[in-house]
Amino acid sequence: MADFAAWSRAVQTRMESALDRALPAESLAPQGLHAAMRYVALGGGKRVRPMLAFAAGEAAGADADHVEPAACAVELIHVYSLTHDDLPCMDDDDLRRGKPTCHVRFDEATALLVGDALQSLAFDVLARPLPGLYGETRVEMLGLLARASGSRGMAGGQAVDLDSTGKTLDLAELEFMHIHKTGALIQAAVLLGALSAGPLAADARAGLERYARCVGLAFQVMDDVLDAETDTATLGKTAGKDAAQGKATYLTLMSARDARGYAAELIADAERAIEPFGPAARRLSEIARFIVERRY
Amino acid sequence: MADFAAWSRAVQTRMESALDRALPAESLAPQGLHAAMRYVALGGGKRVRPMLAFAAGEAAGADADHVEPAACAVELIHVYSLTHDDLPCMDDDDLRRGKPTCHVRFDEATALLVGDALQSLAFDVLARPLPGLYGETRVEMLGLLARASGSRGMAGGQAVDLDSTGKTLDLAELEFMHIHKTGALIQAAVLLGALSAGPLAADARAGLERYARCVGLAFQVMDDVLDAETDTATLGKTAGKDAAQGKATYLTLMSARDARGYAAELIADAERAIEPFGPAARRLSEIARFIVERRY
Repeated sequence: MADFAAWSRAVQTRMESALDRALPAESLAPQGLHAAMRYVALGGGKRVRPMLAFAAGEAAGADADHVEPAACAVELIHVYSLTHDDLPCMDDDDLRRGKPTCHVRFDEATALLVGDALQSLAFDVLARPLPGLYGETRVEMLGLLARASGSRGMAGGQAVDLDSTGKTLDLAELEFMHIHKTGALIQAAVLLGALSAGPLAADARAGLERYARCVGLAFQVMDDVLDAETDTATLGKTAGKDAAQGKATYLTLMSARDARGYAAELIADAERAIEPFGPAARRLSEIARFIVERRY
Repeated sequence: MADFAAWSRAVQTRMESALDRALPAESLAPQGLHAAMRYVALGGGKRVRPMLAFAAGEAAGADADHVEPAACAVELIHVYSLTHDDLPCMDDDDLRRGKPTCHVRFDEATALLVGDALQSLAFDVLARPLPGLYGETRVEMLGLLARASGSRGMAGGQAVDLDSTGKTLDLAELEFMHIHKTGALIQAAVLLGALSAGPLAADARAGLERYARCVGLAFQVMDDVLDAETDTATLGKTAGKDAAQGKATYLTLMSARDARGYAAELIADAERAIEPFGPAARRLSEIARFIVERRY
């Protein structure tokens, strides 16, 4: 996986530069808001969703330059959701990616507006002129991102998560929550990456959706395992918080050993789902394996 | 204006039904979030932005059915912004459209997610299949809405507004704030309505932009006048709040009489800007006059 490590670092470097260009300069008014938007979006993050977008784009035959707007858009939605999730009325967290959260570094009103403006920026970036991609496909991509972000996707998953605090969920309820809260945007990352090459055939789309669903759940299973087993410094966010807040996690339903086994099964299913793409899906495969092998 | 009153009631009725269809049903999970989204978006509101969209669509020759998604999208952005503006960390208001605000009726976390999900829904609605409009035009519309909503538009205006509390603004600074905070979305309403007919010629677009800028400022001038002169019951929101919070308003810079005169000048300029559209721009004209004559 030495080559994969280099590739993922290259994606991170590329994203830092792409997001820097996509975000308004700090010199533009309102400067305070732009400084705060750049604070949360730049200088860190694993960039897992952009990696998925670039890898799916490669599988579908897209030029990486054409995938970049989709990669930026999903990452901007992800960063906005983290900024709002950290607010006192939500998870009330003060550490994110090893730095004070936005409302701690600035204030609550700024963190609210930063999230709001980053969501708008995601759609702005995806709607900017891009040669070689027909309008109809781009409208489809914009609609897909909107649904993945909304009440039937990520925001809806957040609402279910809040409702479930202190309750005992069974595996089906827990997975319903995750499929929305994190799974919807992970699926959007994969599909938007692939759609950057142009319209998708139904069977290719179905394979990518199955891959994304498995990878999204495996990512969440491993998040719960790592949250319980890793210290705050390594994680870059407050460790053990979910359990302390009485939130349902995979580890309230199974042992860490069983959770790791379940993640491995999901990853095997994800790899089968993308077999039809052949060697072009190599990066998608590597990401799937990285998710179960990562340390933080 | 008897005919205009009937037309505006018809737009309100149409919007109630269109938004009802655009919003997820309360029976769909997550039910609590969907109930709260419907609470803030349905059952009230002057629907000024949808009126502007339908009137601009008429001026540009669009079928009203084709304008409806644009009208819904701008209204959903408007309603999301009200929901977030009312939060304790922003304006901390407990009354809106004669009802308890979202965070009072539900809770802060729900109000946050309602706003987030309504923003996503706006882009979802505008990206849904619509016959007779090319993808390129719809991508342009989606990008225009995103920029009008973001840090260089509405959200940016909010940030400037927050920064200006307790400060003395001059007229140029006050108008910079309003052109972003409310003007950007009003301009989006007008342009999206017109673009629902198809691509716009440069001179037609420039005329509509000037109309929107004048109408947006006049609307704000009259808001400040009415906020100072009208009681809470008539207004349906807390009256006199801006002055009490030390916010800059037109009435800190001029008398109510001068403010009314200034609004009238702006409206005259707005009417000149749309003269080239001839009788097709009749509703745009009527809305402009309604704005200076309204009582709440």
